[in-house]
Amino acid sequence: MRVVVLGADGYLGWPTALHLSARGHEVVAADSLIRRRWDVLCGTESLVPIASMKRRVERWKQVSGKQIVWEKLDLTSLPDATALIAQYQPDAVVHFAEQRSAPYSMISGPHAVETQVNNVVGTLNLLFALRESAPDCHLVKLGTMGEYGTPNIDIEEGYIEIEHNGRKDRLPYPKQPGSFYHLSKVHDSHNIMFTCRAWGLRATDLNQGVVYGSGTDETDMHSELRTRFDYDDIWGTVLNRFCAQAAVGHPLTVYGKGGQTRGLLDIRDTVRCVELAALNPSDRGEFRVFNQFTEQFSVEQLADRVRAARRAHGLETSIDHLPNPRTEMETHYYNAKHQRLLDLGLVPHSLQDSLIDRVIGLVERYKKRIKPELFAPRVDWRFGGGGKIAAPPKRSLHVATAPSISARG
Amino acid sequence: MRVVVLGADGYLGWPTALHLSARGHEVVAADSLIRRRWDVLCGTESLVPIASMKRRVERWKQVSGKQIVWEKLDLTSLPDATALIAQYQPDAVVHFAEQRSAPYSMISGPHAVETQVNNVVGTLNLLFALRESAPDCHLVKLGTMGEYGTPNIDIEEGYIEIEHNGRKDRLPYPKQPGSFYHLSKVHDSHNIMFTCRAWGLRATDLNQGVVYGSGTDETDMHSELRTRFDYDDIWGTVLNRFCAQAAVGHPLTVYGKGGQTRGLLDIRDTVRCVELAALNPSDRGEFRVFNQFTEQFSVEQLADRVRAARRAHGLETSIDHLPNPRTEMETHYYNAKHQRLLDLGLVPHSLQDSLIDRVIGLVERYKKRIKPELFAPRVDWRFGGGGKIAAPPKRSLHVATAPSISARG
Repeated sequence: MRVVVLGADGYLGWPTALHLSARGHEVVAADSLIRRRWDVLCGTESLVPIASMKRRVERWKQVSGKQIVWEKLDLTSLPDATALIAQYQPDAVVHFAEQRSAPYSMISGPHAVETQVNNVVGTLNLLFALRESAPDCHLVKLGTMGEYGTPNIDIEEGYIEIEHNGRKDRLPYPKQPGSFYHLSKVHDSHNIMFTCRAWGLRATDLNQGVVYGSGTDETDMHSELRTRFDYDDIWGTVLNRFCAQAAVGHPLTVYGKGGQTRGLLDIRDTVRCVELAALNPSDRGEFRVFNQFTEQFSVEQLADRVRAARRAHGLETSIDHLPNPRTEMETHYYNAKHQRLLDLGLVPHSLQDSLIDRVIGLVERYKKRIKPELFAPRVDWRFGGGGKIAAPPKRSLHVATAPSISARG
Repeated sequence: MRVVVLGADGYLGWPTALHLSARGHEVVAADSLIRRRWDVLCGTESLVPIASMKRRVERWKQVSGKQIVWEKLDLTSLPDATALIAQYQPDAVVHFAEQRSAPYSMISGPHAVETQVNNVVGTLNLLFALRESAPDCHLVKLGTMGEYGTPNIDIEEGYIEIEHNGRKDRLPYPKQPGSFYHLSKVHDSHNIMFTCRAWGLRATDLNQGVVYGSGTDETDMHSELRTRFDYDDIWGTVLNRFCAQAAVGHPLTVYGKGGQTRGLLDIRDTVRCVELAALNPSDRGEFRVFNQFTEQFSVEQLADRVRAARRAHGLETSIDHLPNPRTEMETHYYNAKHQRLLDLGLVPHSLQDSLIDRVIGLVERYKKRIKPELFAPRVDWRFGGGGKIAAPPKRSLHVATAPSISARG
């Protein structure tokens, strides 16, 4: 299978590219590298030093004997997106290439606009590129469980059968996303669903939960193959941040009551889920949705798990409840289905103390690089903020740069 | 009541500005005038000659004694949007300022991107401007009935009570929009709903049906007060196009079987609905949805109504069934609720032969300006197209031009 991985420089994109390559697929890794620039703007940095894409790909060749093709590319350029798809004629495109931080999207108007334009335009361009040059290619798109919000009924996988006034239909599951970032993913989902119906494209939307873990079998093979690890308020995901806090003896910072329940998964399951989706494409015209997570936890439960893992080594960890910077329900019903990837053969890693130990162990190796001031939330959902975070650079997006696609016939 | 009307140069924006002014409200009319530039790009033109905004406002002053303030302004600039709201401190903002043609959005990738960026960014900027400078102001947003698509169950007004696995919730009604334009309105609706919840803004989303008619009491007062009338394949709405075709003895062009059923309303009801919504604001934090139409018709029924109106004058009209350029169901269930505006006091105009006669009469006055080659659909939903329609101009959208909003406190 030939796979293009978009967003291959990211926390999940890079391990996915490696995993697919290790499993014998032909991999083209593409990224605009904007995530490294956003780090500079936010005063954040991966805890684990990461090599350049060029270096990573060379190291992978040397370690595994396998070739990953590296392409620097910005999806918000339609000509570049079209050229990439036309050149490689992939069987599948795995699309991670989005601004993926909810707090970042809530800093200010320009950050909200940057997030939605980057994500929506990149995905639109990809859809047009697929229609033009590879209509049979399977789009595997990374969405988020956050698209659903926290409804008071069970969350299904993308669609729900509704009976109403004596009639029935199977309709897209209603969405209640909780930030401009999560909203951008909902916009993408609607756009992709439409193109499957109108153009006969095939797509799988992976509504992923919160990912934890420091790496995969492949990223562990060499220090230059490591993936980034974020522990800060902007890019860090909750369990990784708790592990980082525990490692340096900082209290675990729980937002509000900590009753917020979410689906989570191990990064090693992310890469496996993506491969399973790619190996089992949806039909032409089908927009398929998988909920990609393995276990549900409340934030409080996660803090307790980290505390327990430390206690097993005789170490005490405290928990601080901070005013919640987000507007979200702190106690709510949550029961989300996640059957379809299991049906395709996923064997999940459950959250073990040993995993928590492993992540904490990694943090301890790079302890000196931790900036504890980055633990506290800088962005408030109601007022924005971000302290010293700079405005996004004046990036001129050429809304229209390609000639109009010629009429049929 | 002080009202800012955004998109005040459009088919509906201008009559709305006049109606609100006639009813004694203080009106600020704003527009980027981009619609006139899009006409040049598409080779289209309003059948009825329209005066410049400056001229219109002067004429209105002279005819009515009332002052409308005119502001040329592009909402995709956050500083400009913020300055407008800060300066006028409106009680309500009526937001028509979007690219509103489904065929235009389907021409090519750049046209799809232009549509979604223009609409989503303009609305995001407006939301930030309201949060910053007028959080109590009521946003009256023009949506479209096309957001819902054609589900096999009754269409409710924005929300639906769902019972599922023994639990219940009232959730946003699932959306199945049918073009990149309709999708942009769904994106807007989700963004606005979120800001009502997160920031306590107040908003009413008017999911409007297909509008017909040549003007209102106010636009009829002077030739320089007339609003535009579109009969072409890109901007013309179905009933107006049929009237134009009938007037010049052209067959009525029905797409496919003509079983597509939609909600419609008279332009005189549009202006009244907007005023009713504005006079009865939603609560702080409330995102309210009204379905804004008065009657349902299939396309075939509309063609028959026009034919019957002509026959009453002894004139025969033929009907051509063209291959449907859109991807839509041609026979389907359709039952959409539209009670809430009636509850606020709307007294609808029903579709009368006299109205059809009046529209045809208007077209006959400007018969020489009709270009019959603009009746045939140039844009196919599956392949794009548009013939000689130019690509959108290379408009540099500065994704970020404002300083980041400062942190709380």
